Amino acid sequence: MSKNLKRIPGGVNAARGYLSAAAACGIKRTGPLRFDLCLVVSEVPATAVGVFTTNLVKAAPVILSRRHLEDGKARAVVLNSGNANACTGTPGIRAAEQMTNAVAVALGIDADEVLVCSTGRIGVQLPLPKIFPGIVMAADSLKASPAASMASAKSIMTSDSVPKQSAYEVSVGRKSFRIGGMAKGAGMISPNMATMLCVITTDAGVPSSYLRKILGEVTSKTFNCITVDGDCSTNDTVLTLANGVSKIAIRTAAEKKAFAEALHAVCADLARAIVADGEGTSRVIELTVKGAKSEADAHRVGRAIANSQLVKCAWAGSDPNWGRILDAAGYAGAFLDPDKVEIAYDGVAAAKKGMGCQDAKGEARLRKIAAKKEFSVLVDLHLGKGEARLLTTDLTEDYVRLNLSEFSL
Amino acid sequence: MSKNLKRIPGGVNAARGYLSAAAACGIKRTGPLRFDLCLVVSEVPATAVGVFTTNLVKAAPVILSRRHLEDGKARAVVLNSGNANACTGTPGIRAAEQMTNAVAVALGIDADEVLVCSTGRIGVQLPLPKIFPGIVMAADSLKASPAASMASAKSIMTSDSVPKQSAYEVSVGRKSFRIGGMAKGAGMISPNMATMLCVITTDAGVPSSYLRKILGEVTSKTFNCITVDGDCSTNDTVLTLANGVSKIAIRTAAEKKAFAEALHAVCADLARAIVADGEGTSRVIELTVKGAKSEADAHRVGRAIANSQLVKCAWAGSDPNWGRILDAAGYAGAFLDPDKVEIAYDGVAAAKKGMGCQDAKGEARLRKIAAKKEFSVLVDLHLGKGEARLLTTDLTEDYVRLNLSEFSL
Repeated sequence: MSKNLKRIPGGVNAARGYLSAAAACGIKRTGPLRFDLCLVVSEVPATAVGVFTTNLVKAAPVILSRRHLEDGKARAVVLNSGNANACTGTPGIRAAEQMTNAVAVALGIDADEVLVCSTGRIGVQLPLPKIFPGIVMAADSLKASPAASMASAKSIMTSDSVPKQSAYEVSVGRKSFRIGGMAKGAGMISPNMATMLCVITTDAGVPSSYLRKILGEVTSKTFNCITVDGDCSTNDTVLTLANGVSKIAIRTAAEKKAFAEALHAVCADLARAIVADGEGTSRVIELTVKGAKSEADAHRVGRAIANSQLVKCAWAGSDPNWGRILDAAGYAGAFLDPDKVEIAYDGVAAAKKGMGCQDAKGEARLRKIAAKKEFSVLVDLHLGKGEARLLTTDLTEDYVRLNLSEFSL
Repeated sequence: MSKNLKRIPGGVNAARGYLSAAAACGIKRTGPLRFDLCLVVSEVPATAVGVFTTNLVKAAPVILSRRHLEDGKARAVVLNSGNANACTGTPGIRAAEQMTNAVAVALGIDADEVLVCSTGRIGVQLPLPKIFPGIVMAADSLKASPAASMASAKSIMTSDSVPKQSAYEVSVGRKSFRIGGMAKGAGMISPNMATMLCVITTDAGVPSSYLRKILGEVTSKTFNCITVDGDCSTNDTVLTLANGVSKIAIRTAAEKKAFAEALHAVCADLARAIVADGEGTSRVIELTVKGAKSEADAHRVGRAIANSQLVKCAWAGSDPNWGRILDAAGYAGAFLDPDKVEIAYDGVAAAKKGMGCQDAKGEARLRKIAAKKEFSVLVDLHLGKGEARLLTTDLTEDYVRLNLSEFSL
């Protein structure tokens, strides 16, 4: 990481000119009353862009936020957990509109300056009578404090076990800008947008065309390279607001490099936090596929391995089962010569030329690695220069138990 | 089912002119000594064809059996469980060759008349010193009895909990031919060949070109329409031998229709038995996708749903979660208008026009259906005439527990 990049507290409130607040409205149906709604507000109009789910089934807030982003501007984001407002048809769109309208009235801004995100149960209409008072409460208590950003990060949790925040200060000459964000996401995590929500705020001034380009690039290398269960949800959203309050505008190549690095740092932190908190998972695996004929092939092989139920079960059982990994590579739809494949755990070769290469002592060593909470797996196809890196998890009995029903959200 | 088709006992020994025998050689490493090798032998040379895994990582017995099938003829099949002889490189090919050589010597036939199948652990060399005496024992005790076919069906079990056999007698005018088979398969079951082995024997006389064509067609509608975990293995094999001992040759359109129907009946029985015995699964779901723009689209949607970890977990929890089904349909890569989708459980609508359509009483009724051991799910996309039918299962904690390691095989 660049020495100009300094980790700071504050999440979505780390950057100057942003306020936030959370409310507990009772949208989450079980357990004690918890935060389940929040507002993130820029004191001045901000450049805003988003990256959304590729699922053809898009939740109402995704449809509405895309519409409100057409002009590349926004002032506020309203987020709720406990109900995804997905598969809710026209009434769902109306409900999302009413959420943005209520925020607009409470803040004295236009509804199309308000973005909206929802996460939670699919197929149930939003309880607007609970949401409206929540919006008023949050709007009345907006603050730029670490406590406010923490409450906001908590308010978007569903099956997440911990709130997820990250922020950095970036020196540019004698001045500095800040960037921070929060995310939620635990199950339904897959490349091409996870079931995740993420809001990133920066006080740099960034032209919307560049912000759109760089957010796409960074997302493809962070949030789109993690997978928990291969499912791709209806609500995935990454929103980024840039309000320019720092008076630093991102224009030169050096400034763009610094901004890209900082955005990548925030997204990488949040992506890793999402995987590490995967529903019921017990291990984080850094999977690298190299030597593929193309980058696309490397991703195909990576996803086949990272999403294979059998590979993931083996990892849960501390079994460095290179056979299942090779098997998954074989059906990935990529060029492959099984007799060339090399597989290693934390740098220790498990297979070379498509065959096991360890004696009993070596296998015991591999099993010790696969029993760690975090380890790396390298799959080298020895065919070309295509490479892909993914973060993935194991598949545990706890995952299944947690997902037997989502009534508990 | 046609009235000319009569279910009979006997599995691979049901058809005339076939003998079989099983042996317990100690290839399966745990528990008491169990059958783990068998021979299926035709008394006369038979027409023979096979369908094999599409995985680029092919096990040695797959490579060798394909080679031995080039002339469209075979006399015998040797099968073992406990070791898949996959990812074993050149030594693995040699071991498979030595298995067929040993059978050839024991039976006094040519090695290229012998086909070979293995199932079990991947990446470990075959214990040939245990296999050779097993082949001699089996060759010495060949019989055409229901007990012999049952022992053979048991000998190919790995994590299967029950042996899988099926056989029919088919009346053609005043004469009849017989067809029967056995299969194994429990995990790594996916469309485009499951982790399964299957041997089918018939005493009809069938030209190899027609036998190849019809086996492909029937396989695509039976074994390739089942999925347990979406994984596609290195060893999948369906072999079919036709020895003509019944003196009925399949030549006319009517004879071909009768044969196709009988082959389909055997394969459908075995495919259903494989799904019903899916590792640690508790439910069998008949999934129909209709109204797709094309048959390929229907299959894409069907596989996305049938392989979704979240859909499968919901089923395990008796949760008729149509939202997760719609979500999976949305990322299947097929044409879809979410607002047109209809989802029904055992004929009871759960969602219409992409939205839930039941009150609390209706939802309770749906939950009762989803709690059954077997139920049907219909997904109608209302876009065209494409249709696909799949058999699938839920995803349980037991599945994960069973697959934490395959050391137990």
